Formats: sequence, C-alpha cells, structure tokens
Amino acid sequence: MPSHYHNFRNSVPWLILFLEAVFIVFFYFSDYDEDISNILYPDFQDVNHMVIFGFGFFLTFLKRYGFSSTGFNLLIIVLGVQCSVLIEEITKATLSLTAVVISTGAVLGKTNPVQLSLMTVVEMVAFHMSRWMHNTFLKISDNASMMHAHLFGAYFGLAASSHFSEPLPGSEKNASTPKSDLLSMLGTVFLWVFWPSFNSVLLRDKSKAIYNTYFALAVSTVTAFMLSALTTKDGKFKMTHIHSAVLAGGVAVGYAARSIKYPWIAMILGLLASVITILGSYCLCLNPVLKIHDTSGVHFTFGLPSMLGALAQVVLLVIENWTDIPRLRDLVAIHIWAFFLTMDVALITGFITGFILNFKLFKTIPVSKYFEDQFYWEFPHLAVGF
Amino acid sequence: MPSHYHNFRNSVPWLILFLEAVFIVFFYFSDYDEDISNILYPDFQDVNHMVIFGFGFFLTFLKRYGFSSTGFNLLIIVLGVQCSVLIEEITKATLSLTAVVISTGAVLGKTNPVQLSLMTVVEMVAFHMSRWMHNTFLKISDNASMMHAHLFGAYFGLAASSHFSEPLPGSEKNASTPKSDLLSMLGTVFLWVFWPSFNSVLLRDKSKAIYNTYFALAVSTVTAFMLSALTTKDGKFKMTHIHSAVLAGGVAVGYAARSIKYPWIAMILGLLASVITILGSYCLCLNPVLKIHDTSGVHFTFGLPSMLGALAQVVLLVIENWTDIPRLRDLVAIHIWAFFLTMDVALITGFITGFILNFKLFKTIPVSKYFEDQFYWEFPHLAVGF
Amino acid sequence: MPSHYHNFRNSVPWLILFLEAVFIVFFYFSDYDEDISNILYPDFQDVNHMVIFGFGFFLTFLKRYGFSSTGFNLLIIVLGVQCSVLIEEITKATLSLTAVVISTGAVLGKTNPVQLSLMTVVEMVAFHMSRWMHNTFLKISDNASMMHAHLFGAYFGLAASSHFSEPLPGSEKNASTPKSDLLSMLGTVFLWVFWPSFNSVLLRDKSKAIYNTYFALAVSTVTAFMLSALTTKDGKFKMTHIHSAVLAGGVAVGYAARSIKYPWIAMILGLLASVITILGSYCLCLNPVLKIHDTSGVHFTFGLPSMLGALAQVVLLVIENWTDIPRLRDLVAIHIWAFFLTMDVALITGFITGFILNFKLFKTIPVSKYFEDQFYWEFPHLAVGF
Repeated sequence: MPSHYHNFRNSVPWLILFLEAVFIVFFYFSDYDEDISNILYPDFQDVNHMVIFGFGFFLTFLKRYGFSSTGFNLLIIVLGVQCSVLIEEITKATLSLTAVVISTGAVLGKTNPVQLSLMTVVEMVAFHMSRWMHNTFLKISDNASMMHAHLFGAYFGLAASSHFSEPLPGSEKNASTPKSDLLSMLGTVFLWVFWPSFNSVLLRDKSKAIYNTYFALAVSTVTAFMLSALTTKDGKFKMTHIHSAVLAGGVAVGYAARSIKYPWIAMILGLLASVITILGSYCLCLNPVLKIHDTSGVHFTFGLPSMLGALAQVVLLVIENWTDIPRLRDLVAIHIWAFFLTMDVALITGFITGFILNFKLFKTIPVSKYFEDQFYWEFPHLAVGF
Repeated sequence: MPSHYHNFRNSVPWLILFLEAVFIVFFYFSDYDEDISNILYPDFQDVNHMVIFGFGFFLTFLKRYGFSSTGFNLLIIVLGVQCSVLIEEITKATLSLTAVVISTGAVLGKTNPVQLSLMTVVEMVAFHMSRWMHNTFLKISDNASMMHAHLFGAYFGLAASSHFSEPLPGSEKNASTPKSDLLSMLGTVFLWVFWPSFNSVLLRDKSKAIYNTYFALAVSTVTAFMLSALTTKDGKFKMTHIHSAVLAGGVAVGYAARSIKYPWIAMILGLLASVITILGSYCLCLNPVLKIHDTSGVHFTFGLPSMLGALAQVVLLVIENWTDIPRLRDLVAIHIWAFFLTMDVALITGFITGFILNFKLFKTIPVSKYFEDQFYWEFPHLAVGF
Repeated sequence: MPSHYHNFRNSVPWLILFLEAVFIVFFYFSDYDEDISNILYPDFQDVNHMVIFGFGFFLTFLKRYGFSSTGFNLLIIVLGVQCSVLIEEITKATLSLTAVVISTGAVLGKTNPVQLSLMTVVEMVAFHMSRWMHNTFLKISDNASMMHAHLFGAYFGLAASSHFSEPLPGSEKNASTPKSDLLSMLGTVFLWVFWPSFNSVLLRDKSKAIYNTYFALAVSTVTAFMLSALTTKDGKFKMTHIHSAVLAGGVAVGYAARSIKYPWIAMILGLLASVITILGSYCLCLNPVLKIHDTSGVHFTFGLPSMLGALAQVVLLVIENWTDIPRLRDLVAIHIWAFFLTMDVALITGFITGFILNFKLFKTIPVSKYFEDQFYWEFPHLAVGF
C-alpha cells in the first residue's frame, strides 16, 4: 500500500514537467507581438491579485488544507495561464482561470495535484471552446462570454465532482476552525474589493459596471447578514454564509453590469442573489439526490447566482425592448442559447473529465486521506497547535 | 433569560432589512448621472481597500472577536456607503466611513450589530451635517473638511462609549494573543501603505500630500519603536504601541498635508504625533476620570494626533501669514471654528447616540458577553485551538 | 546578567533617536523640488506594498518571531528610505531597500534592532556607492544597476552573517509551524504578484519586462512543485521550497527582463532559476564549509538566482551580438565588471559590517535567545496557543 501512494506522488513531477515542456515548445513558436503594450498593467494586476491572492486564501477554510489550498491554487493558475495565453492576451487568460479556480472549489481536498493539473488544462480548453462558440455562432462579445466563467466553473466542477467518492460521514477533517475561517475571510474580503475590477476589466466604458457591481455586492452583504441570522437555529451568524453570500451579488450582476441603468436594479439583483445563495446552502439539493459532494459550496456560491444573473439579463432585455418584438426575440434567443451552450459544454466536459480523472492511472486518493495537507506536504515534526 | 437574547438576535435581521429597504427606495429615485465616469476607479479602490481590508484586520486584535471585527466592519461599511452615496459621490462616501470605523473601535466588543448599524447611519448623517456646515458657513473645501474624519470619529465614538458599561475588571477576553496581534499587524501595515492615498485622494495636485504623509508616517514609525522601548518596564516593545503609533503621523499630517512645503515639517509632526499617542496610551486619562472605556484606544490613536494636526495647521498658518495680520486672523478663525464645530457635533451627537443605543429596545448585551464572538457567530463544534 | 540585557534594550531607543535626528537635520536643508510630481504614485505604491507588506510577511515563517519579522521590517524600511531619499527619488529609494530586506533575511533572528538599524544605514550607503560606480565608471543605467539589489543584498547579508554564531544544533525555535508557514505563504504570494512591478518600475517601456517576469515566475512556480516532489524523501512537497523557488524566476530574469525578446527564453530562465534554488537548498554549501548560517535561505532564494541571471544576461548578449565582436567584447566586459563590482562591494562591506556589529558595544544577543520574539516584545501573560 505505501509504495502505491509513493508511486502516485512520483507521478506529479513528471506530469507537470511534461506539461511545462509542451508549453515551452509552443511558446518557442510565439513572439511578443505589437499588442502587448496595449494591455493595461493595472487592469491585469487587479485580476492577477484576485485569482492568486483572493481565491488562494478564499479556499483556506478547511482546517487541515491551508498549504494545499494556497499552494495548488498558485500551481494551477500558472499552468492555466500559460496554456491560455498561447491563444489570447494575458488579462483574458487570467480572467478565464476563474472558471478553473471555481471548479477546484467543488473538488477541493479530494483531488491530487496530478488530477488538478489535468483538470486545469482540459477545462481551459473546454471553456475556451465554449467562448469561441459564443463569439462565432452567437456573435457575443468577449466580455459577455467571459462573464459565463462562474457558471461554467461551477457546473464543470460539480459534474466532475459527481465521480469522486463522498467523504466519510463522520470525517472531522471536512470542517473549518475559527482560525481557518478567519483566514478565508481575508481572501473573501480581497475578492470582494476586486470584484468590480473583474466585472469591468474588459469593457471600454467601465464606470457603470463598477458601480453596479459595487451596489450589488453591498446589498448582498447586508442580505447575507440578515438571512444568516434568520435561518440559523439560534439566530447567530454563520461564517460560511457570509463567505459565500457576500460575493453572490458580484457574480449575479456580471452579465448585465454594463447595461443596468439604475443602481436599484443592481441592488435588487444583489439581494436576490444573496437569498438564493443562503437558501441554496440549506437545500443542498444536489447532495442527497444526486450524491454530489461540493466542498466549498460552489453550487450556491457561484452556480445559482450566475443562473439568476443570466435570467435577470433576459428579464431586463424584455423590459427594455418589449416595443420592438422582432429585435427582442433575437436578443432573448441569443442569451438563452448562450446560457444553455455554457451549461451543456460545462456539464458534458466536466462529466467526462471527472470520469477520466478517476482512472486508476491517476492514483485517486483514498477517502480517508481527503482534506489532509499531510498527505502532500512535509510538515515540521512538532506540528503542535496546528 | 435565554429567550431574551434570542429575541435580541432576531431583531438584527429586521433592522437591516428595514434599512436596506429604505436605501433601495431612495435609490429608486436616483439615477447614474454623467459624473460617474469622472471618478477615478484606482483612487476609489485605494480607499475601499483601506476601509474594508485595512480597518477590518486592524481591529482583529481581540483574541475572541476576529469574526465580528472583520464581519461587522464589512457590514457597517456597506450600510454606511449606501446611506452616504445618496448625497455624494462614492469615493467621498467611502472616505467618510473612516469616521464610523474609528468610532466602532471605541465600542468594539460592546455593541451588537443592531446598535452598530444604527450608529453607522446616525454617524454618517451627523458627519455629513458637520461637513456641510464646514462647507457652507466656513467655506472650507471638501478635502479639508474630510480630514476631520479622524477627529469626528474618535470623539463621537468616545462620547457614545461613555454610556456603555465598563468591562469586568478581570475579564481575560478583553485581551489579545500573539496570533491576533499579528493579524492586526497585517491590517496596520495595509493601512500604513494606503494612508498617503487617503490624505491625497480628493486633491488635484497630489504629490505634496503623498510625500508629506509618507514622511510623517515614517518618522512616527521610528518614534513608535523608540518610545515603546523607553516607556515599558523592561525596555521591550509593545505591539499595541506599534499598532497605534505608526499611523499617528498620517493622522496628524492630514490637515496640512497639501500645504506643508518642507519634508522636515511633516517629519516633526509625525514625531510629535507618535509621542502623544504613546504617552496618551499610558495616561488613559479618560478611563479613571470620566470612566470611559475605549477598546481599541481610538482616543490616543486617532483623537490626540488629529487634535495635534489641527493645532499644527494653525501654527503653520501663523508662521506663513504673520505679515498679513487681517488675512491671518480670518484664516485662523476659520480653522479654529472648524475644529470646534467638528468636536461639538461629534460629542453631542455621539453622546445622544450612545444614550439611545442603550435603550432596552436594542437589547444591550450583558457585560459578561463583551468581546465574545460566540455570542454572535455559530462555531464549529470542535473549536480546539482557538 | 539581566541588567546587561536591560542595558542593551535601552540602547535601541537612543540609537534610533540619534539616526532620526540626523535625518531631520539633513531634511532641513532639503526642499520638495519640481520633480516630485513626475513620480507616478501607483508605481511607488506597488514597490512600497512589496517591501513593507510582502517582505514583512514573507519573513514570518519562524514560529516565534512573527512580531519581530513584520515589526523590524517596517522599522528598517522607514529608516532606510529616509536615508536613501536624501540622495535620490522615493521610488528608487524604496527599490534599493530590497537589498537591505534580503540581507536581513540572512541574519533574521540573530540580530537585535540596534544592529539591524546600523546595518540598514551602512548597507544603504554601500549599495548606493556600488550603484554610483556602475553609473559613473561603467555607464550602466539606473534600472540595470538597481537589478543588482538581490545579488548585493544576498552576499552582503551572508558576509555579515559569517560573524554571527550559529544557532544551537537542537534549537527548536529555528523552525516553522504550519501556521507560520501559511502566513509566510501570504507574503510570498504578495511578492509574487508584485514582482513584475519591481522589474519594470524604472523602465519607460514596461510591457516586455512585465511579460518576461510573469512567464519566468510562472515557470519557476511549476518547477518548484516538480522539483520539491522529486527531491524529498517521500515525494511530498516542502513549503520552504515553494516559498523560495516560486520567486526565483523573477529574481533571475531581472537583469535581462527588458531585453528578452521571446517568452520562451524567460521561461527557460525561470526553470533554471528554480532548479538551482531547490538544489542549492540541499547543498547548503556554505553551512558546513564556511560555517555561515543563513536563516531564511537568502543564498539560494536570491543569491544563486541572481548569479544565474547575471550569467544569462551575458550569454544572451553573446548570442545577439556575436557578429560584432568589438561591441560584444565591450558589452560583456561591462556586465562582468558590474557583476564583480557588486559582489566585491557587497562581500567586503558586508564582512566589515558583520565584524562591527559584533562589537560588545552593540550587546550581541546570546545564542540561546536567537529566534525569540519574547526577548524584544512584551507579550500578553496568557500566551496560550502561540
């Protein structure tokens, strides 16, 4: 048995060496073109901060999985950006990594780095394909198709997660401590502050998207506190609710951020997003029925709010264009097509990826070692107080 | 008894729901006007980072109050900004929240979220009123009146705090651990780096304000280490001194940041600010005499340095304009009026607010539950190692 | 004995008071000139974030040295910047502090604040002298000579460290805990994100330097994970490897960042930098032979990668200019001279500084008190769970 896992660990370096070698070969044929000086460094930096620092610490809530959460997050982002930058500019490449990071949340603690690295590359290609179809067949702008990242990431991750065993019922490792929750709050706050950048970075006229995102985030924060106190048994707040619901508004408003004309619409959207996130976290509808385990709750943190956002965009279109029925029909059709396209590509490729990742070849980790840093990382011998 | 507190907790969601509903109704009548694209996103973002991330973690020094410090900080900021943005632009709205966050520091751990939310709204209105009087009667610029935020926040908070019971003398919860102090250092360092942004954000010509703030901060940091070692019994440094005194220079230089012509003046100001902060932390003059308890030491961290800054501004005016007595008299009168106006409005409204917050209606928390996250937050059952 | 250390502690405040007084006197004769508005605040802020927040938390890996790591880092940076800004602009002053912070890493936990403050001032002067010689005799641009900061800092620190006793062999304080390693990861990630700013900040045309740095960092991150798993006994990752090797690419690419024309060259450089960092961490060649102890591994984190970078720059020059032998000879000569100049100045001044710092006058701390916050900082009495 031990040698079995020993072997598994030795497969990590060779896989990432292979990937890196492939990237370098591809890059050998690429050149810095004239465009690179057009990319605004501050814009790129905001997005980079968000995915590396923000998501890295957002995912540290598991009590024994802090090293892996931050470390593997950095690893998959650099792999993904290298893969993605071969076909597009670096800001978009980093933005599209959001999808991968969200998927990672669904299988956090259950996947080894080999599986994560493979998933990253496959998902980057799948998401790029989905966006390419948006641009080519539906004539959707790059910014609009990028806003599907949350939807794509959440359902790709859930579909992949359906192939992984559920954690043992009494497992105390699948839990947080006050310390790890506080560290995760640090990441959450960082994501919160940078979310307006995310929703506006690809737009030429950013102001409206920034404001709408800010107001949606603000209202979903207020609603998160309100609903958390209303729904827990003894009227206390629950940190998990706060972590997921404060961001829900930013996710939901993504699709329509640049077109919403009045702040109160963004605010209502933020409120609804927070409501479905917190109610969703109770239903856990996927778990008992479909037996899908979702470690960091990506279904209700990113999946449901982005569904709501897609729906809201269609409703707003109807309200704005109801006098011009033919135009309305076209617009609505495009958005519905875009939504189902993203969902289909995400679910199908996610399902296949999950299936492949569970081949014996990739040495899936035993359920008893889920959520455990010590399986991957050398620790100081006297790890007292961890 | 338990049902009493149960009821209290159930009042939180309804209050914030009510507030949020009011905001949304007000926003319904507001529109994005043409100005929004004039606001520089990077400027806003610096301020946003500062109040949400910086102050959120600056206040995490209490050993059992990390969730509430960061969580409630986020809550009151989004409430306050929504309230404030109805009457002014978002960058100013966020800047003026500094006053609220500072007041929160004085009553940290002693107020429940209902009280905090109410205080936020009342203080926003009071601070806005104070600034409006500055602008209208004294013809003071918006930037100059905004620099009164620290003064206003500190004395509003202290006046409100005078109505709250003092913590039990032997309470071990009103203390920090090395871990919580280190986390608070993280917030402090973040505030330190962003303080030049705070002092310069509303100015057109920012350079001088940035430099003066940086040098004042630098010297107050050096002085903090020097005085901390000189004043402790065994010549060691005290983290609490460092937390408060490294920022003192930035607070004190705020008023005159744009007009100080030589770096050494800013440096002297930073030195003096740090000195009164650390000496002030020993006198604790308010506590034994007026029986006012001040959890995070806002009196000496923000109150005294901003008094010094106001004084320094007058002295600098005298030195610069002593040849032109009539003009000097006017200028000095304006600044002295502005100072007393801020103080008066802060003390009076703060005192009244503190009085109202202690109505039974708001279910004030029992002294034995002060500084205790578990009173508000659900915790994982096995909270070992907290 | 206790009074001996008591005395030592009392020397700290007087030294830094003296230094600060000297600075204020010098600043008295300086004025804000017209140039200050030319300095881009966002550029300065990135560098400021990096040295204060990034390095401050990067150095928190020691289990009982978190207060000193972040606190003394802030202290020496403000001392160093004040010293350095007297002769150059603030962004360059802050950049050159990187050298000091790196040297600090080599003697971390073994020096008291008196020694650190002196070292800061001496090193700033020495590094400035070295850069002045670069500019004057070798006609090297300011940006290029600034990129020697890592090389200078690492070897100055190592030379100084050679005079300090080695820690006791069984000392458990010279170690990290999972918590402190995670906090150090926070600093590392922050440095990682800001490294492209560091390498590009003094350039007019920044894009190429930003891209090259990003790709070098990305590949050195991937390589760090690969080699860490390959070289540990049981195929696990080691956090220390990740901390140092993910940054190696950014260090190595610094010299040539603006001139590398193809991303794959930066990538290969990042790969090699990560390789020598991790292999270097095993050789520990200095320790057994030269008996030099290097707390945070600056030799392999910054020293070896910057040597590699200097070598790579020469190789790239040869490849690009081999058709024009006379020009090539000159260029290569300049770069080799620059390298040896930096090394010589660093080693000689570092060695002398280390010698002076160990005078009894500065009350060197006993080996048994190495790596111990409690020697410098007052702690809450109930420091349970630290």
